Amino acid sequence: MKPLKQITLDDMGHIALGGAFLGTGGGGDPYIGKIMAEQAIRASGPVQVIDVDDLDDDALIVPVAMMGAPTVMLEKLPRGDEAISALRALEAVLGRKADAIFTIEAGGLNSTIPIAVAATAGLPIVDGDGMGRAFPELQMVSMTLAGVSACPMTMADEKGNAITLNTVDNLSTEKFARSITVEMGGAGLIALYPMSGAEAKKATLRGSMSLIHDIGKIVQEEQVANRNCADRLARELNGIRLFEGRVMDVDRRTTGGFARGTAHIEGLDAFAGRSIRLHFQNEFLVAETEDGKAIATTPDLICLLDLETGVPITTETMGYGFRVIVFGLPCDPAWRTDHGLQLVGPRYFGYEHDYVPIEDL
Amino acid sequence: MKPLKQITLDDMGHIALGGAFLGTGGGGDPYIGKIMAEQAIRASGPVQVIDVDDLDDDALIVPVAMMGAPTVMLEKLPRGDEAISALRALEAVLGRKADAIFTIEAGGLNSTIPIAVAATAGLPIVDGDGMGRAFPELQMVSMTLAGVSACPMTMADEKGNAITLNTVDNLSTEKFARSITVEMGGAGLIALYPMSGAEAKKATLRGSMSLIHDIGKIVQEEQVANRNCADRLARELNGIRLFEGRVMDVDRRTTGGFARGTAHIEGLDAFAGRSIRLHFQNEFLVAETEDGKAIATTPDLICLLDLETGVPITTETMGYGFRVIVFGLPCDPAWRTDHGLQLVGPRYFGYEHDYVPIEDL
Repeated sequence: MKPLKQITLDDMGHIALGGAFLGTGGGGDPYIGKIMAEQAIRASGPVQVIDVDDLDDDALIVPVAMMGAPTVMLEKLPRGDEAISALRALEAVLGRKADAIFTIEAGGLNSTIPIAVAATAGLPIVDGDGMGRAFPELQMVSMTLAGVSACPMTMADEKGNAITLNTVDNLSTEKFARSITVEMGGAGLIALYPMSGAEAKKATLRGSMSLIHDIGKIVQEEQVANRNCADRLARELNGIRLFEGRVMDVDRRTTGGFARGTAHIEGLDAFAGRSIRLHFQNEFLVAETEDGKAIATTPDLICLLDLETGVPITTETMGYGFRVIVFGLPCDPAWRTDHGLQLVGPRYFGYEHDYVPIEDL
Repeated sequence: MKPLKQITLDDMGHIALGGAFLGTGGGGDPYIGKIMAEQAIRASGPVQVIDVDDLDDDALIVPVAMMGAPTVMLEKLPRGDEAISALRALEAVLGRKADAIFTIEAGGLNSTIPIAVAATAGLPIVDGDGMGRAFPELQMVSMTLAGVSACPMTMADEKGNAITLNTVDNLSTEKFARSITVEMGGAGLIALYPMSGAEAKKATLRGSMSLIHDIGKIVQEEQVANRNCADRLARELNGIRLFEGRVMDVDRRTTGGFARGTAHIEGLDAFAGRSIRLHFQNEFLVAETEDGKAIATTPDLICLLDLETGVPITTETMGYGFRVIVFGLPCDPAWRTDHGLQLVGPRYFGYEHDYVPIEDL
C-alpha cells in the first residue's frame, strides 16, 4: 500500500467508494461528502495528506465531522459552511488556529467532509482516523482509549446556531451532543477532540486515508474488469465473504438520533436455504443466523456489497430485493482489548453476544 | 413601597414568601433557594441592591437562574457552586467579569438563587427582573421584547458539565437549552442575557426585588395577625380573589422538561356549588370554569394561596384536599402588547383562549 500524498479531484471517486466500504453501512452517504469535497478542491486546490509521524508535536489537530442519523443527513444536506463554522468556533474557544484536519471515522460522509474542510481552510489532512471504520457514537474512538478528551467540542447547524460543550467525560459528550443534534433537526456539524501532534501520535489509527483510497481503487478496478471486488478484498485485506443473498425485509426506525433496525437476508447460490439477520444502529453491528448464532459482531467490520457490482450499500439505502454479499473484516487490534470491547463490543449496544474475533467464528 | 437597599439574613424569609407568591406556582421551590442564599450571606455578608438607573452604562449585568422542571429541582438539590460555575463560564466566554447579578424571573427559586450567587461573588443584585412574575420558557422576558439576545448563554450541572450556546434567536436558545436540561437530569444552572447597564435600563422591569420583599412582608404580617393576606394583597396590589375551594384532583406529568397538568378545584363558602380548573406548565397559566370560560389567563398572574395561612402553594406541592384561594393579579403592561402576547399569551401555550385582561373578565 503506497501512502497517499495529496487528494485531487481524481481521487475523490476512490475515496467515496472506500469510505462507503469502511463505513460498514453507516457514517452517512459518502456521495454527498464527495460532492462537497470536489467543490472545495475545485475552489481551493488539492489537499495535502500528512503522515501522523510528520506532525509537529505542538501542532493543533482538529477532527471535523457530521453527527446524526444518516437517514436524516440524506434529507438535510449540509450547506457546506457549517463544518467550517464548527471549526472556526472551536478555534475561537482554543484561541488558536488549527494546523491540520483529522478524520474522526474512516467511513461514509465523515471520511469526505474533512477533505472539504481541509481544502477550504487551506490545511493538510492527517493520514489516520479514530476508528478504522465507522461507529455510531462519538466516544467510540482510539482517542478515548488513549485518554484524550472530546472537549472542548463545538457544534453548528445550517441555521447559524453554535454550541460549545465541556463535559466531564467522552460518554457525557456523546449524550449531550446527541440530544443537541436532535434539536438541530437530526444532524449537526462538529469539531472535537482537539489534539496536539504529540497526542495524535499516541491516540490515532494510522494510514486510514491511504487505506480508504486503496479500497476504493480495488472496488473500481474490479468493477471495470467485470469482477466482484469481494474476492480481491478478501485476499488483500484478510477479509471473509460471510454470506450471499437477497434482502427480504428491512425494519428501520429513527429513534434518539439514530437509525436503528434489522435486515433479513435469504441465501442465494452456495448459501441457498439459509438466512441471516443483520442488526444495525447507523452501522451494521451484528450478523447472526436465524437461530441467533453470531457470525460476525462489532467491533469487527460487517460490510454489505452489491452482488453484481461490489459497490458498498448503506443501512439507509438497502431495501427489499437487493442482492448482496455480506463481507467481514477484522477490526483494528485496539478494539479487541478489554477497554476497546467495553466501548464498542456487542453488549454495549444491547446485543446478547460476547465478542469472538470474526476469524474464529 | 420603600426600595430595598440591601438583603440580609433577616430579609430572606420575606423574599422566599414573596417569590413563592409571584412564582404563580412555578419558578421552583423558593425555600431551597432561601437556604442557599442564607448560607451564602452567612459566609460572605449581605448583598447590596442596586437600582437599574444607578448602573453604569457600560457595566456588565448577568442574570443567573436554574432551568428545568420544578418537580425535578425538588429531588435534585443544586450543590451550590453550579450557579457560580455557570457565571464563571459566561465571564470566560465574554472575557470580562460581571459587575452585577440580575434576576431573570421574579418568582420561586429563581428569585433567591441570584441572591446566593451575588453574595458568593461579592456583587450587587439589580432591583429588577425580566418577567414581573415567573414564566416557564427563557425567551419569555422583557429582554426579548427589547431585542436583547439570550446568548452567549452558559449552562452547568452538578457533575461538572458546562455548555455554551450561541443561537440565532431566543426561541432557539430555549429549545436547545431545554433539551440540554433534560440530558442534565432535568435541571441545570444557567447564566444568560448578558447586558450592558445601558441595555438593562431599556430592557428590564423595575423594582422587582423590593416588590417581592414587600409581598412576603405582607403575607407574614397578616399571618401573625391571624388574617389571610388575600384581602390586603388585593387592596395594595390591585389583585382579585378569583375563587375559594378544595383541590379535588391533580393530573400532573413531567414531559419535555416541563411539569404540566391540570388541577380541579371545587368551591367552598361563597363559591360552593361551582368548580374551576387550573392549567399549569411549571406555572399556573389558565383558570377556567367547568364549562370552559376563562376567569384568568397568562400573562396575568394566577396565584394559589393556602386558605388558612395565605402561604403560596406551588404546582408541584399542591395535592388532594388542599383548601385554597385562587388569587389573580394584573401582569406588567409590557406583556399586554401584541409582541408580549405572542410570547406569553394563552395561545402560545396551546390553550384555546384569547387574552382578556383579568380586570375585564
